[in-house]
Amino acid sequence: MMISLLALLAAAQAAPATSPAPPLPSDPIPGDWRPIPDDELLVMTLAGKRTVVIRLAPGTAPEHVANVRRLARAKWWDGESVYRVQEGWVAQWGDPNDDEPGKPSKRKPLPADVVKVPAAEYDIATFAPAQRLTRADAYSTASGITADGWPVATDGTASWVTHCYGTVGVARDNSPDTGSGSELFTPIGQAARRLDRNYTIVGRVIEGMKYLSALRRSDAPLGVYAKAAERTPIVSARLASDIPAAQRPHFEYRAADNPRFAAMIDMRLHPKGLVALGGIDVCDVPLAARRVGAQ
Amino acid sequence: MMISLLALLAAAQAAPATSPAPPLPSDPIPGDWRPIPDDELLVMTLAGKRTVVIRLAPGTAPEHVANVRRLARAKWWDGESVYRVQEGWVAQWGDPNDDEPGKPSKRKPLPADVVKVPAAEYDIATFAPAQRLTRADAYSTASGITADGWPVATDGTASWVTHCYGTVGVARDNSPDTGSGSELFTPIGQAARRLDRNYTIVGRVIEGMKYLSALRRSDAPLGVYAKAAERTPIVSARLASDIPAAQRPHFEYRAADNPRFAAMIDMRLHPKGLVALGGIDVCDVPLAARRVGAQ
Repeated sequence: MMISLLALLAAAQAAPATSPAPPLPSDPIPGDWRPIPDDELLVMTLAGKRTVVIRLAPGTAPEHVANVRRLARAKWWDGESVYRVQEGWVAQWGDPNDDEPGKPSKRKPLPADVVKVPAAEYDIATFAPAQRLTRADAYSTASGITADGWPVATDGTASWVTHCYGTVGVARDNSPDTGSGSELFTPIGQAARRLDRNYTIVGRVIEGMKYLSALRRSDAPLGVYAKAAERTPIVSARLASDIPAAQRPHFEYRAADNPRFAAMIDMRLHPKGLVALGGIDVCDVPLAARRVGAQ
Repeated sequence: MMISLLALLAAAQAAPATSPAPPLPSDPIPGDWRPIPDDELLVMTLAGKRTVVIRLAPGTAPEHVANVRRLARAKWWDGESVYRVQEGWVAQWGDPNDDEPGKPSKRKPLPADVVKVPAAEYDIATFAPAQRLTRADAYSTASGITADGWPVATDGTASWVTHCYGTVGVARDNSPDTGSGSELFTPIGQAARRLDRNYTIVGRVIEGMKYLSALRRSDAPLGVYAKAAERTPIVSARLASDIPAAQRPHFEYRAADNPRFAAMIDMRLHPKGLVALGGIDVCDVPLAARRVGAQ
């Protein structure tokens, strides 16, 4: 096994060491961890007791998040599935049924209060990352991490949340205003940045991403499983706020509006003993969240 | 299911449609597909008849590829395993044994002609992509795709092959000159660009990536499986040139030095019916390879 440096780089996000070494400038202090409200957590349980926890993004996708909350309260996803796992692209879940021209729709009806809404976008005035990255990337002219831990980018006019590994996007049909939040996907390979501005990020997987990323790939066109038996059933999807207090999970995110977070980025830009590359991609900045308390 | 545009974007790399529609400017012509020499193909068979084919990169990592060829001819990997699968980071294979201070090494001895070599790097004179991308990224000042289909980047002084999803890197210990090619890894999530210039790309997975990317993640530190039973055994790893002609696979890559490839990039930059983002990341350019002929 040869692993040392590779490991060291990967471990940069890891919890503080248990050794008595003094804290690094990049180690978060207790106040850097801030609670995620219970109604901003979607707890999706897949068959086999595999729990995927999604932090919702009401600040940037309020209408889509409102839909997700309605769908969760209607228990709409219960009994649905992860029906699409395309190698190097996305895992997608919801209702696998599709419309066929000239036939009655087989799609599961949406709750009456769930309306399809246009892709979210916001203007440059809202582009205010707490950590602004120093180099542009191929898809934007500036990018960074907001105080509350979301990856954002701008082209100088509009700004948006970026499609990184593990962010949760709203699937839709051809027209940009056909997404409701009922069909969701997450990139399981290279960031899907070419979807930026065309699709809406409604959240981010903060626990259990491995239960989506390691699902068997489908060889069928577009990664949609050819047989129903291949799908991974969704047992339930609930807002944490709707889960009885005794079972309710609690999570915190690592805030970015502090010098520890800046030091972590700087450590990535100037890794000890390595050739420095001068920049870091917005999708490569570690965005930590952690489960706290009992449960 | 809502899928149309998401699918369309993902399918941009797919084979030409079977419909009688006229070819697109981005469709490769037969001459764009060029053979990969048999001794530049490493065929790794995992337990369960899962075949992973790696295209080697002798042009940019000649010493490491020479080692890989010696290791394959010595059947060094046979009976070894994929011993590390870390969520959002890499799958790694070779010999899982590690040295412990003060004890005799348990590592499998390397063939006598395999020598550890420094990380490969080459100077700016060799940075000559056939397709130069128009926007910088966070890790380099320019990037592009070489005529023979490798993703490359430069900082204006040095140049290198980039750590994209599916490229195969040479693992090593702390010192940059400790990599032999016996321990290999591939990014299974967001591109591992922060390893650029510090590790050597020795190849790229061109078939069977799903057999590495969908392996069960390890919860142990650094993603190294805690138990031997969790590892995925490597049945064999052979150069195609060492496989009997009747069973030998043949592959072609899509060359980038032609207007069809440029048109494909342009189609990504200006997707029909979508908001254009103005650029594409070097790790997001589709690099196609295909199996040809009987077996």
